[in-house]
Amino acid sequence: MELWYTERNIVPGLALSVEVSKTLHSEQTEYQHLAIVETPLCGRMLLLDNIIMTNIKDEFVYHEMISHVALNTHPNPKKVLVIGGGDGGAIREIIKHPSVEKAVLVEIDRRVVETSIEYLPEIACGLKDPKVEVHYKDGIKYVQDHKNEFDIILVDSTDPIGPAVGLFEGDFYKSCHEALKEDGIFVAQTESPYYNEELIPKVQKDIRANYPITKLYLAFIPTYPGGCWSFTMGSKKHDPEAVDFSNWAGYKTRYYNPEIHKAAFVLPNFVRELISK
Amino acid sequence: MELWYTERNIVPGLALSVEVSKTLHSEQTEYQHLAIVETPLCGRMLLLDNIIMTNIKDEFVYHEMISHVALNTHPNPKKVLVIGGGDGGAIREIIKHPSVEKAVLVEIDRRVVETSIEYLPEIACGLKDPKVEVHYKDGIKYVQDHKNEFDIILVDSTDPIGPAVGLFEGDFYKSCHEALKEDGIFVAQTESPYYNEELIPKVQKDIRANYPITKLYLAFIPTYPGGCWSFTMGSKKHDPEAVDFSNWAGYKTRYYNPEIHKAAFVLPNFVRELISK
Amino acid sequence: MELWYTERNIVPGLALSVEVSKTLHSEQTEYQHLAIVETPLCGRMLLLDNIIMTNIKDEFVYHEMISHVALNTHPNPKKVLVIGGGDGGAIREIIKHPSVEKAVLVEIDRRVVETSIEYLPEIACGLKDPKVEVHYKDGIKYVQDHKNEFDIILVDSTDPIGPAVGLFEGDFYKSCHEALKEDGIFVAQTESPYYNEELIPKVQKDIRANYPITKLYLAFIPTYPGGCWSFTMGSKKHDPEAVDFSNWAGYKTRYYNPEIHKAAFVLPNFVRELISK
Amino acid sequence: MELWYTERNIVPGLALSVEVSKTLHSEQTEYQHLAIVETPLCGRMLLLDNIIMTNIKDEFVYHEMISHVALNTHPNPKKVLVIGGGDGGAIREIIKHPSVEKAVLVEIDRRVVETSIEYLPEIACGLKDPKVEVHYKDGIKYVQDHKNEFDIILVDSTDPIGPAVGLFEGDFYKSCHEALKEDGIFVAQTESPYYNEELIPKVQKDIRANYPITKLYLAFIPTYPGGCWSFTMGSKKHDPEAVDFSNWAGYKTRYYNPEIHKAAFVLPNFVRELISK
Repeated sequence: MELWYTERNIVPGLALSVEVSKTLHSEQTEYQHLAIVETPLCGRMLLLDNIIMTNIKDEFVYHEMISHVALNTHPNPKKVLVIGGGDGGAIREIIKHPSVEKAVLVEIDRRVVETSIEYLPEIACGLKDPKVEVHYKDGIKYVQDHKNEFDIILVDSTDPIGPAVGLFEGDFYKSCHEALKEDGIFVAQTESPYYNEELIPKVQKDIRANYPITKLYLAFIPTYPGGCWSFTMGSKKHDPEAVDFSNWAGYKTRYYNPEIHKAAFVLPNFVRELISK
Repeated sequence: MELWYTERNIVPGLALSVEVSKTLHSEQTEYQHLAIVETPLCGRMLLLDNIIMTNIKDEFVYHEMISHVALNTHPNPKKVLVIGGGDGGAIREIIKHPSVEKAVLVEIDRRVVETSIEYLPEIACGLKDPKVEVHYKDGIKYVQDHKNEFDIILVDSTDPIGPAVGLFEGDFYKSCHEALKEDGIFVAQTESPYYNEELIPKVQKDIRANYPITKLYLAFIPTYPGGCWSFTMGSKKHDPEAVDFSNWAGYKTRYYNPEIHKAAFVLPNFVRELISK
Repeated sequence: MELWYTERNIVPGLALSVEVSKTLHSEQTEYQHLAIVETPLCGRMLLLDNIIMTNIKDEFVYHEMISHVALNTHPNPKKVLVIGGGDGGAIREIIKHPSVEKAVLVEIDRRVVETSIEYLPEIACGLKDPKVEVHYKDGIKYVQDHKNEFDIILVDSTDPIGPAVGLFEGDFYKSCHEALKEDGIFVAQTESPYYNEELIPKVQKDIRANYPITKLYLAFIPTYPGGCWSFTMGSKKHDPEAVDFSNWAGYKTRYYNPEIHKAAFVLPNFVRELISK
Repeated sequence: MELWYTERNIVPGLALSVEVSKTLHSEQTEYQHLAIVETPLCGRMLLLDNIIMTNIKDEFVYHEMISHVALNTHPNPKKVLVIGGGDGGAIREIIKHPSVEKAVLVEIDRRVVETSIEYLPEIACGLKDPKVEVHYKDGIKYVQDHKNEFDIILVDSTDPIGPAVGLFEGDFYKSCHEALKEDGIFVAQTESPYYNEELIPKVQKDIRANYPITKLYLAFIPTYPGGCWSFTMGSKKHDPEAVDFSNWAGYKTRYYNPEIHKAAFVLPNFVRELISK
């Protein structure tokens, strides 16, 4: 059966289509439309409001790269907060790190977590770990209520349309800064440098206003528009490019390694220009 | 008018669609279907047999990365051969390099060159340079007839289906090796590590059989499937990761820079595994 | 090149795609987007605001059926008005009828007429006939300014969205009634009985309020959504089902004939129910 | 979730897409791919080898028109055979006719019947009626083995590609003629007059070679390509256009009525020409 899911016009004039063999789940939650489809190319895929969030084939790239760069930049991360990320993929990676004692997930939509546990156990598996706490709350409010508490905050959000708009704004970055300890590190997914030429400089400026060290890094994510995805790190003290991996014990990863950690910060000229605007 | 070009099933189960505002040219040449379309997202696009070859928005990535890595690995490249590449983009980059005295383009399909000159002058502009020679010939035969002549050979081919199949085979790599001088360097575009899990190890093995130094490197190309594109270099003597850029004068590029040169060879774990198969 | 035009969601949840070999013309006029594309299936197609208006392959059905039913219901039509219909197809049919002395086209968008003359001469050919008058005016105002003047008024409009909404309203029907002579006949295209289950009963009611004889008839139009298209006739005196064709001399048509004239008024049960609502 | 099923290139250069809310069933049977999808526009749809067979919204048209025209042309139909038609829709209509004593369904693919009973009970409901016999056999062989037995044979087949090709050939029509009683009637679905300009004249010729009365009739079926569908009747004795409905008691139908019965045989000029080729 020729059945295709199409993600259209997230980047105007561009559409990505993936063949679907089966719809496993589809519902309107309190916050968004949520679906799980089975695809020949990528296995199961999670869609929120008709946008590809994650899939079995390449989720490892996003989840490793949003978490391990910060986890290995910080010399001793104990308490990590994830805003969004209800599929559990970032959590699964965070608890691989030996020094982590507590990983807190704050996801506004309980159904994303429940559905991921049911249909995407390979991704959501870490959510049951005793080190993990899950709160179904608005991430913006949550960080406002927690001061000087986390070593790392990761913003694993949807695109800056609709409910996630607030997660791309200066006030939120300021609250995160206050929720971090004195040597804390903030990382947010910050879209594509090919197609978000206004958002990226704005986010850079807003994060730089809060953190002495602000750096963008890139990863290859084939099911996001253009396949080139950026993350922006704001760090109070530790420089991600100065990490000494000489005694790194490591853990199992499929994308991340110490050389990738460094190379991800090496930017093409056009991206250098974009963030220096 | 909602008119979309769709590149479907080059990767099975995946389709990329780009909105088209106008078809500027469409013809069946002796070798393939050739079209130029105007798109809101990418400006003009060149399509061969219904596959996106290049476009104004992001062509700089591919053309810089197929050429400058080898050009700067070789200490003194004078004579460079491009097989395919009829749009002229690789040639435009090659002649930026100060030591290059002659750049030879061998493109089987004269209409690709003529159409690119007419519709894509930003890309094809270098083809009129006095250092450039253009031959409308079969690249496989051309390299067989030229021994010990080139410092660098770049294979800027279409995908390994139809006419380009021979450009992905061991015999061709052997002929290229013979056409190169004793410290020559070979580079070929070698598709996506996400979606060509059989081709890449095979090409690695075939190139390694000819060159002591064989290395794969990556670049972000948003209009190729998955956005992550590989190039494989076979080098008789010079190691691309050992280049000393300390006295590099440089020239204007939008993607390439000395740091990108090195970082492009840093591979995610899954790609390391793929090429060690 | 696989390039497709897609007409999407005019009927929600339904899309019709036609392969395009070339875009011949594309412009934003003062009123709407206008395009001419060449298609392998249908030859040249006229698109207005991304909706298929007409095409060389099947235009004869619509143009014959909007005009000849009324022309042969009226015993002696001399003066005929077409509102919309800038492609000229209805006019071409009207002037085939031997008694017609004057055919007036009132099209708001001059560019539709000019572009049709240039690219669709098979359809627009009648516009140069000495019996034909073309006015670039708002049809609603035009009928308000003409009283008791026409034997037949045909409303060859776009869909009831945007500029054409007023052509589906009671006030307009009333003005048309006044612009018609005492035995005049009004015909409007009135969309699909499968997909316009609210519009059709409303239009029926509004036309019935003005004309003693109100009847819906159907034709097979393959490039309109669902392929089943309705026309609604309001007639002051002459009954279209009572026409005596025994002495009909006829003229060349490809769809219409006296038997089709009668059969078009025979409605499936579900359409009978729809118009009796 | 924007998920669309697309039926592409059954008519070259044309595609019909229907939004899908859920895939309910999908399997490769011994004979074909079979799927049931839920759509916002049409309710549940049955797809065979990626072609729309039937759907809840408009199935009544096809099923009433393939059966009631013959059932009311024959003065006293007692035994009716359906070749194909595994969804049961034709059977449901046949047993509405008061004189029918036995309705035999010969469907090659048992899974079509079983799946329709499970997912399309509104269509398949008649299959459990005591007058109905279901055989899972090749229809071509079945008619060869039955002589002079049926009053009516209906060929409710898929398109003339793959397994159904034999159901559009002269030998099969001859076998059907022999399986019919001396005043028997044969009806087959015979595709679109807009897009099957070679098939329809060929089928006409082949049926005419067997039956003194051969007539084509049309119905509006919005989810078949072009929306205009033809059926061809071969009748040994009774003329469908000469039926006297004056004492017709009738039964509940949504499309068919005595006037539609007659009007369906009134053909546009281009169809008249097509069948006189």
